[in-house]
Amino acid sequence: MGYALLDAATDPATVLDCGLVPVLAAASAAERLLAIAGALDALIVRHRPAALAVERLYFNKNAKTAMRVAEARGVAMLCAARAGLDVAEYTPQEVKLSVTGSGSADKKQVQRMLALVLVLAEPITQDNVADAIAIALAHAQRERFGEAVAIASR
Amino acid sequence: MGYALLDAATDPATVLDCGLVPVLAAASAAERLLAIAGALDALIVRHRPAALAVERLYFNKNAKTAMRVAEARGVAMLCAARAGLDVAEYTPQEVKLSVTGSGSADKKQVQRMLALVLVLAEPITQDNVADAIAIALAHAQRERFGEAVAIASR
Repeated sequence: MGYALLDAATDPATVLDCGLVPVLAAASAAERLLAIAGALDALIVRHRPAALAVERLYFNKNAKTAMRVAEARGVAMLCAARAGLDVAEYTPQEVKLSVTGSGSADKKQVQRMLALVLVLAEPITQDNVADAIAIALAHAQRERFGEAVAIASR
Repeated sequence: MGYALLDAATDPATVLDCGLVPVLAAASAAERLLAIAGALDALIVRHRPAALAVERLYFNKNAKTAMRVAEARGVAMLCAARAGLDVAEYTPQEVKLSVTGSGSADKKQVQRMLALVLVLAEPITQDNVADAIAIALAHAQRERFGEAVAIASR
């Protein structure tokens, strides 16, 4: 599972940390969920984020994969909720639209846009990590838009 | 989410506890997962079960429902793994086959068979609770079969 921690108070937003939760190929489903929960709990303690955003994925080419991803998402949402974080969910289309301006952008377009928007020295080409950064950025942009609307309507 | 705690050491097996985790209709996905984790943690502390068995459901008429169920399953497996329980997964077909002798039995057949096998004073007609009892019973029967094979091969 990919993860990314974004500081949205800077301009551009800053990637504080990102990566993949290491899971052994031979791990059982339960061991995998334990590893994910342990890694997320540690990241939450270390970075004290205000919110967790996850991808709301309903379909996948592989139904079994989609279910395993959903199990991991449930665990991620639980870790966040237990630590008092806001939890937000975005569909892949919402993330692509927010990051690239097009809901049908492909992975490479999203990754190029992330490098531009976040002024990254090199593009993130690990799909799950790039997805995590894109989801975090989509959430930050929505929050910023919400604040702008709140300020504009004062 | 339905749950059931089964004592498989008795003959027939004894339903120690069963029910539905109460979740408010207005709860967010994160609040729902918090409620499920809290309820399961409490049940595990109270009953000290040796194993958790869950239904491995890949498809559902409604993809959104299937994903929400998978998220909850991930949380349940995490709670169990953190408490040191064995975690087992069964497909609906495996559960039906184990309980009724037919992998294509319908819900009512499963519920009638549960009442017979477990000598229940009245059938469990709440679908999610009956499913939970059936999954627990399927696991108990597999464990018993495994033991019988182990004894037979001594």
